[in-house]
Amino acid sequence: MLPNSFDVSLPDWTTTFIAAAPQRFLTVEERMAFVIELGRLNVKHQTGGPFGAAVFETISGKLIAIGVNCVMRSGISSAHAEVTALSLAQKAIGQWDLASAPAKHYQLVVNAVPCAMCYGAMLWSGITSLVTGASREQVIAITAFDEGPIHPDWVGEANQRGVEVIQGILAEEACSVLRDYKKSGQPIYNSCRDVSS
Amino acid sequence: MLPNSFDVSLPDWTTTFIAAAPQRFLTVEERMAFVIELGRLNVKHQTGGPFGAAVFETISGKLIAIGVNCVMRSGISSAHAEVTALSLAQKAIGQWDLASAPAKHYQLVVNAVPCAMCYGAMLWSGITSLVTGASREQVIAITAFDEGPIHPDWVGEANQRGVEVIQGILAEEACSVLRDYKKSGQPIYNSCRDVSS
Repeated sequence: MLPNSFDVSLPDWTTTFIAAAPQRFLTVEERMAFVIELGRLNVKHQTGGPFGAAVFETISGKLIAIGVNCVMRSGISSAHAEVTALSLAQKAIGQWDLASAPAKHYQLVVNAVPCAMCYGAMLWSGITSLVTGASREQVIAITAFDEGPIHPDWVGEANQRGVEVIQGILAEEACSVLRDYKKSGQPIYNSCRDVSS
Repeated sequence: MLPNSFDVSLPDWTTTFIAAAPQRFLTVEERMAFVIELGRLNVKHQTGGPFGAAVFETISGKLIAIGVNCVMRSGISSAHAEVTALSLAQKAIGQWDLASAPAKHYQLVVNAVPCAMCYGAMLWSGITSLVTGASREQVIAITAFDEGPIHPDWVGEANQRGVEVIQGILAEEACSVLRDYKKSGQPIYNSCRDVSS
């Protein structure tokens, strides 16, 4: 029998964390501070990579869903923080296209520039705004995570598809979590590349 | 309460289809014919987009997992055929990095060139071989699905990460399923782009 379903779930600590969170986050800095804390706690609890993300109603700032990196816990390589947050937002709203949902404008906030996969995922999700912390170059330099071959004009390509991109919010704080992860000695889980042996 | 988990499951018709499938597929053409049929049946049963994918042990041809497009049924925009097949393969094997799994060499076979998201997803999955049917240009011309901003040198970037790319296998048969989908009048579910109103 081949498997016919898979699931991804957030780590247990997120339940109490969410319960204590404000319902609304008015500024992009507040939203970014929140997802940086998600990344920090994911490292602290050793539940995955140092990445956090959340989806907000862009205008009201209402929190719709959160995500953290769940790759190692879930055993699913696509369970990055962004894919997890977008999927949970779609579940919360009952609609795979967030641009067709009532608030119409939803924003994905991530503590780093998305990898090649998550960049594609956010374009299909119906969000209309992306806010990032650490740059791609900072992620690679600090952690050695491979961010993958993103399109060289990824900002322009996103803009063309109706997604604004706001970069570098609280980048220094975002980088400090990446440094903590690297220092902790937890895995840098790029897929294995040397399969020649 | 925000949602804390999401799941993706294959449509019911896949159970009997898998039960009747050979355990091994020796050639890339046999593997491609199988995933084209998955796409065709997904259209026929109206369970999603015209895309099918499967993961095989590259050398033995053993079938590990299948995927079809599950976006509309699951309400999750990332539940493309490739992400579904890769996730189910990782579940089957109990390991998020297929390159670290016993057979070491796993192959993703898809009836079309992966979109920008799925291209990134396959790089993180640990597969070492990608086989495609219809080209990106054929998908866009026939269906008007947006394949997204993939890296211009996506083949070279995959090769550098240890993934071989074999393109254009049974491309005409693959295109015929795309044409059937377009003719059927079922949705072309690019994310909504006009959110200005």
